[in-house]
This record gives sequence, C-alpha cells and structure tokens, in this order.
Amino acid sequence: MDKTRFETFSDGVFAVAITLLALNLVVAGPGHGSLAHQLTDRWPSFAAYVVSFFTIGIIAVNHHALFKTFATIDRVLVFFNIALLLFVVLIPFATATMATYLRDGGADAHLAAAIYALVLEGMSLGFFAIFWWSVHRRLLIVPLTGRESRTAIIRFGIIGNAAYIFAVGIAFFSAPATLVISGLVALYYVFEQTPSAQPV
Amino acid sequence: MDKTRFETFSDGVFAVAITLLALNLVVAGPGHGSLAHQLTDRWPSFAAYVVSFFTIGIIAVNHHALFKTFATIDRVLVFFNIALLLFVVLIPFATATMATYLRDGGADAHLAAAIYALVLEGMSLGFFAIFWWSVHRRLLIVPLTGRESRTAIIRFGIIGNAAYIFAVGIAFFSAPATLVISGLVALYYVFEQTPSAQPV
Amino acid sequence: MDKTRFETFSDGVFAVAITLLALNLVVAGPGHGSLAHQLTDRWPSFAAYVVSFFTIGIIAVNHHALFKTFATIDRVLVFFNIALLLFVVLIPFATATMATYLRDGGADAHLAAAIYALVLEGMSLGFFAIFWWSVHRRLLIVPLTGRESRTAIIRFGIIGNAAYIFAVGIAFFSAPATLVISGLVALYYVFEQTPSAQPV
Amino acid sequence: MDKTRFETFSDGVFAVAITLLALNLVVAGPGHGSLAHQLTDRWPSFAAYVVSFFTIGIIAVNHHALFKTFATIDRVLVFFNIALLLFVVLIPFATATMATYLRDGGADAHLAAAIYALVLEGMSLGFFAIFWWSVHRRLLIVPLTGRESRTAIIRFGIIGNAAYIFAVGIAFFSAPATLVISGLVALYYVFEQTPSAQPV
Repeated sequence: MDKTRFETFSDGVFAVAITLLALNLVVAGPGHGSLAHQLTDRWPSFAAYVVSFFTIGIIAVNHHALFKTFATIDRVLVFFNIALLLFVVLIPFATATMATYLRDGGADAHLAAAIYALVLEGMSLGFFAIFWWSVHRRLLIVPLTGRESRTAIIRFGIIGNAAYIFAVGIAFFSAPATLVISGLVALYYVFEQTPSAQPV
Repeated sequence: MDKTRFETFSDGVFAVAITLLALNLVVAGPGHGSLAHQLTDRWPSFAAYVVSFFTIGIIAVNHHALFKTFATIDRVLVFFNIALLLFVVLIPFATATMATYLRDGGADAHLAAAIYALVLEGMSLGFFAIFWWSVHRRLLIVPLTGRESRTAIIRFGIIGNAAYIFAVGIAFFSAPATLVISGLVALYYVFEQTPSAQPV
Repeated sequence: MDKTRFETFSDGVFAVAITLLALNLVVAGPGHGSLAHQLTDRWPSFAAYVVSFFTIGIIAVNHHALFKTFATIDRVLVFFNIALLLFVVLIPFATATMATYLRDGGADAHLAAAIYALVLEGMSLGFFAIFWWSVHRRLLIVPLTGRESRTAIIRFGIIGNAAYIFAVGIAFFSAPATLVISGLVALYYVFEQTPSAQPV
Repeated sequence: MDKTRFETFSDGVFAVAITLLALNLVVAGPGHGSLAHQLTDRWPSFAAYVVSFFTIGIIAVNHHALFKTFATIDRVLVFFNIALLLFVVLIPFATATMATYLRDGGADAHLAAAIYALVLEGMSLGFFAIFWWSVHRRLLIVPLTGRESRTAIIRFGIIGNAAYIFAVGIAFFSAPATLVISGLVALYYVFEQTPSAQPV
C-alpha cells in the first residue's frame, strides 16, 4: 500500500481540525456587555485554544516524522491511523466543552476537563498503536532487532501516555490544572521529538 | 487528463467532510442538566460519529487504492467522481439528521435512518460507477480482457451495494439496526480491500 | 515563481468551499413538522446544493487543466487567482441566500438569484482574467502567436461569461430559471473542457 | 527534518482559514427587512471579508516564497510556524468581531479594530520570527554573511511590522481606518514580494 496519499489525507484532517478550533471563539456582540468584559469572561476559550492548537500542530509534525520511518503501511496500520484521526477530530469538541464549563466553574468542570484529557489520551494511544504496529510488523525502512523493538515500544508507550493519564486523574481535583498539564505536554513535544524507532 | 491534482482535490474533500462530522457534537452547556446526562442523552450522535468517521476514512483509503490502478482518467470519470464526492459531503448532514431522530425515537427515526443508508448507497454507487467506467473504457494500467471485466464489475457491484440496500430496507423496521449494519460494512472494508481490477 | 504549492493551496480552497455547501442543509428536528415535510419544504436547498456542488467541482477540474498549460506564474496571475478564489468561497453564502429566498418565493427571490449568478459570473471573470493574463504575458509552456492569442482570448471570454450574464438578467423574471441555467452551465463544462490555449 | 509535508499542512490551514471567512457572511432571511437592506446594512462584513481574504491569500503566497529559500527546517522554526498559523486561524474570528462592532459603531468598534490589527501583527511577527531564525541558524539554501544577515533581518522586520503596529494605534481614532490600512498592506504585498534573504 502506498503511504503518500494517506499522508496527504491525514494532513488535511489535521489542518481542518486545527482550524475548526477557532469556531469556539465568538463574542455575543453589542448589547451583551462591553467587548473587553466579554473577552476576559471567555479567557478559558482563549487559553484552551492555544493549548489545543499547539497540541494538534505537534501531532501533525510528529505524524510526519513517524511516517517517514515507514517503508510501507498495511490495513491494520490504516485502521489505527483512522482511530488516531477520530480522536484528533474530537479535540475541537472537547476543547469547546471544557472551556464552557471552566467558565462556569461548577462541578461539571471536572468531568469536562477529564473528557478533554481522555480525548488527548485517546489520540496518544492511537499514535502509540501506529508506532507499536510498525515496529512489530517490521514496516520500518530500517527494521529493529527484537530487543531494540521492545525497548523502543516501552519507551514510546510510557513517555507518550503517562502525562495524559495523569491529566485525566488531576481533572477531578482541578480542571484548570488539566489544561496546564496538557499545555506543558504540547510544549515538551515541540522541542523533544517523539522517540523514533530509527536512532535507538 | 492528469489524475494527480484531481486526487489531491478529492483527498481534500474527504478530509473536510470527515472533520465536519464533529460539528454535530455539541453539548448545551451549564443549566441544561448535568454534563453526564447531556452526553448519555446524545449517545446516538457519538455512535453515528464513529460509524460515519470510519465510513469516510475507508472511502478515502479505497479511493486511493482504486485510483492507483488507473493509467489515466477522462471527463466521464471526473463526472462520476464529483457525484461520489457529492454523496460523501452529504454524510455529515445525513449523520446529524439520523442522530437527532434516533434520540427522539419517533416515527421519523425510520425515515432518517433510511436517508442515512441511501446517502451511503449513493456514495457506493458513485464508487461503482467509477470502477465500472475505468474497466469499461480500459483506463487501467493493466487492462482486463472482456471476460475478466465482466467478472470484476459484477463482483464489485454486488459486494459494494448489497449491504447498503439492505440497510435502507431494514431502516423501516429498526433505525438503530441501520446504524449497526453501516458500522459493520465500514469494519469489513477496513480489512477487506474493495475488489480491485488488478489481481482478478 | 513556483506554481506547485499555489495549486495545492487553490485545491484546498476548492475542497473546503465545496464541502461547506452542505452546511446549508439542516432540518429543524422533531417538533417542527414531519421529517418528510421538512425535507420537501427545503427542496431549493437540495437543488441549489447539487448545482453549486457541480459548479465548484468543475471549476477545480478546469483550474487543473488551465494551470497545466502554464510554464510559470507571476504576481499579477496570483492576484487574479486570489480574486477567483474569493468568488469561489462566496458560493456557499450565495447558495444559502438564494435557497432561503427561493423557499419563501417573495420579491427578494429575484435579487437573491441575481446575486447567486453574479457570484458565479465573478468567479468566471476571475478565471477569464487568469487565462487572458497567461496568454498575454506568454506564461504558457507553448506560447501562442499574436493572432492565436486574440482568437483564444475572445473565445474563452465569450463562452465563459455569456451564460452567467444571461443568468443574472433572467433572475429578475424567474429565480428558479437562474438556478436551472447555472446547472446547465455546470453540466456543459463537465463534458466540454474550457477552451484551452494549447490546442487552438 | 523534511519540510515538504509541513508545507502541505500549512497550506491546508491557510486554505481552511481563508474559506471560513465566508461563515461570517449570513443574511437573516425573509421577515428581517428587505434583502437589499440586509446586505447594505452588513457592508462591514463584506469589506472585512475582502481585506482578510487577500491578507490570508498573500500570507500563503509569501509563505511559499519564504520556505523555498530553506534548505532544511528545525524544531524552533516549526514552533514559530505553528505560532504563525495560530494567528492566521484567529483572523476569521477577528474579522467577524470587527465587522460586528463596525456595524454598530459604538465605542467598542475601536477595541474590535485594534484586536483585528493585533491579530494581523501577531501573524506578521510569526512570519518575521521564521525569517529571522532561518537566517540566524543558516537554514537557507544559500546562507548569508553576517552583515547580509543583519541587513536582511532589519529590513524584513521594519517593512513587515510597521504598518500593522500603526494600524493598531489608528484603531483608537478610527476603526474603519484600520480596515483601510490593512487592505493597503495586503495590496502592497500582492505586488511587492516580502524581502527575501536570497537576492540581497
């Protein structure tokens, strides 16, 4: 199976999902309080926009880096990739929901933040599944030995998932903390490439 | 006619349509019942989202596989492809409509589910028309003999359309059954490639 | 200037604009009359969707065919191309407006239909401007002689614009007639390529 | 790092953002005054649409021109590029907000126009950061000498940012003036390429 057009399709989904994040940003217009008040009142929408924007942007970049190591792709990898995209496309919804309840500050803010972190963890699991399968099925340009494979998969799995699982748990204590942790993860991945299979 | 840019355009449409599916996912926010209640109340939206997401994802993948067998494309194939995309772009609308009426559970749920399956069948027919024309007009890199063509067209037509036509009929007995069948079709196509003209 | 990425960008705009057409398709849900009634009541939205979908689809295809004849592009051509895209992106708005007023059938239906045809004519003029400039500035792979240029430009200008100008005028007599004419133009262009500069 | 897929992703974001501008264009339909009245009443939406459309279109073109001069990209450049895209995706929101308040004409029109110009300035700063980093880190195909680098960076910084900073300030005196200045900047960049590092 050819991977080029599948990458183009994935890039398109990343690009649309990242842009739809801005649909959550609206002001009610004249007659609903001053513009300055409306904007400060909606600070969670803007904070969540920035965090989700960098999260999707970094997923796109790391998706590029990962697919570059593949010699070929198969049907199972396609399935995992669609699952990954399914969670990416949920991010604007999860972002909007969290921002709405963060503003309100009620008990549901915890649940909304947990859902946000769960969606990011789902995306992260999809990414891990793609990586695991590519190593396991030796779809890489430079296949790894059995021992290298195990090391790479364990490292990738722990680094990729620990923070988001932690963010799900922390949501029930502090919803804004979940947003902060998610932002730190995105910042981390800007400068630290996901552990690649190649240079182990 | 060059097929590359036409594939890029089609990929773009697939990517936008799949992402717009998430616009159907909204919660009403604080003051409309607990978030947990709102989310469980909207389960049809989430179930339909997953089914439609995999359906469009698989169409994109199979579109890639099909176009790879073409040496060239002509104006009629372009027409069929635009018709295919027209139905793909209807999927978010059909998904939203079905989910709305599934939640309500009234008599119109049957009609809404039938329309959903009809849109998928329309997409499937568009796919079949592209396949038929490419075989008939010998646009393939490796053209088939007359007998091989007939076999391939019949197989493709039956496999591709039977399930969705069945899903249209079943809608009038059970709307959720239509959604389940559509999900099974998507799952089937994840792992079974559409019958290609090449390895007959 | 490199034309490849500019084509990718244009393809993206075509793909998003064509998909946004479906945002005009919504039903009000349970409690607003039967679904069948809602759907038949909104027939103008569906008819306009089909016409606009084929119109944008064909623009994308003919844009491909036109750009393939270019050896290079310059800043003025870029300007004309952005102007073309500006009108393409207006098509979903013009389609929604026309459909809304067609349903109502009041006096404003004429104006709404005229605006629809004007947007299509604006798109058509943008296309003509790109063609004219490419011939005039000899940006083509196979430049034309002065006489060939004049013939090609006149033919392209007349064929491309006459029908939409006529559709603007007819709008003030019959709004649905404008939609029918626009549909026929799209159908014509599916099978008749825009007059290319190359095989004059 | 490979720059090709990152450019495709950026192009996708430009294409979606430019198309979402049209979502701000809506008429209320029959029963809300004549269509002609509704359209003239919303002139700021249409004026702002044209200005923002050309602004994003030109960003896309200049992004192409800039990335063509790069031999490679690194993680920091990726970070700056995501920041650039973050502001590009804010443009439809800023455009809608400014148009809403321009129509109303109250005191908040000044703030809305200032936010619009600030978003464009943010985009412009992102562009400058990419340019500066590429020159500073010698990521260019044809690296510059130390003196050439300083000259190029200063020129790029001044030309790219002066007008938008001026537009932010002028917003507090006249909101429409901000829109006019932003339109002139877009027009300027259609015909004047951003100062490139290459032909200093």
